[in-house]
Amino acid sequence: MYEGPIQNLIDELGQLPGIGPRSAQRIAFHLLNSDPEEIARLAAALIDVSENAHFCSICFMVSADDVCKICADPRRDRTKICVVEESKDVAAVERTREFRGLYHVLGGAISPMDGVGPEHLHITELVRRLSDETVEEVILATDPNLEGEATATYIARVLAPIGVTVSRLASGLPVGGDLEYSDEITLGRAFVGRRVVS
Amino acid sequence: MYEGPIQNLIDELGQLPGIGPRSAQRIAFHLLNSDPEEIARLAAALIDVSENAHFCSICFMVSADDVCKICADPRRDRTKICVVEESKDVAAVERTREFRGLYHVLGGAISPMDGVGPEHLHITELVRRLSDETVEEVILATDPNLEGEATATYIARVLAPIGVTVSRLASGLPVGGDLEYSDEITLGRAFVGRRVVS
Repeated sequence: MYEGPIQNLIDELGQLPGIGPRSAQRIAFHLLNSDPEEIARLAAALIDVSENAHFCSICFMVSADDVCKICADPRRDRTKICVVEESKDVAAVERTREFRGLYHVLGGAISPMDGVGPEHLHITELVRRLSDETVEEVILATDPNLEGEATATYIARVLAPIGVTVSRLASGLPVGGDLEYSDEITLGRAFVGRRVVS
Repeated sequence: MYEGPIQNLIDELGQLPGIGPRSAQRIAFHLLNSDPEEIARLAAALIDVSENAHFCSICFMVSADDVCKICADPRRDRTKICVVEESKDVAAVERTREFRGLYHVLGGAISPMDGVGPEHLHITELVRRLSDETVEEVILATDPNLEGEATATYIARVLAPIGVTVSRLASGLPVGGDLEYSDEITLGRAFVGRRVVS
């Protein structure tokens, strides 16, 4: 409908998750009428993420530095590792205030449909973290859906010979849901009621 | 919650209209996992809009060139001008395929609360477009709310001495709507504007 730069921006915005054509148009016109400085700041934030956002070399959470704040924090309980799919799941667990241990971000879940196998996840690195025997318990906090369950089952089997306690978040999380969107109380209860699986 | 670039991007995205903190986080993580090329393209589209999006010198619609495609199109009916608040309203009217004339984008509506007076809108330029007597009808298609109505009333008064026909879009029940659920004002307007059908 529109010409040149504005249509191009609408098209680009429309490719972002959760932004339909109407929202894209609304945002594009908002930006058109706003301060060039505001636009430049947004553009710079985008480039900054693409160039400077790193992943923690220990837990693979998104981090500004080589080691993230949580891994670097001496007050965290180093005997427990909570395994999650994505960095945003760490934020969800942190909000419950039920867990003071460390994390391990897999970088996704096993999903043959999307061509994601165990070799694409940071599972080898998790096993390596368990080698010095500090860790006593691994809590599998993958999403309570098909892919998340498959991933948890796979990891439980890999960790079985190592001899650490492996637990899974309690049911109570709505099945088919998304860990990121569960409320703090439900997620907190799930932490308290976690069951030993091997 | 997050560190450095990713939190900064979440904050910037969260300031866009219609994007809450959860959506901002979702988009930021989507971008974090996507091709740097895709991010660069979005950033470039943003800068391009801020630097190269112009407004048509005749109708003030957003345009890549000095004169927009509609004003430059010799097939459009030059005897009619449809007056709208924003460029996106042009897109809405075009989708109806009911109008083949020209447009005039005011750049907003009169709103004393927001400090927008008639002098901030392209009303003088509208009057100037009527000076060569080609235009026979001006259709006021401002939004059917307080500000839009005030703006239409003001423009109608300004154009009265010029002697062109000035019309306003019909108010009434939305097609496909439910009479029971329509508000009193809309239903009242539908009564006032009723047409004889036989």
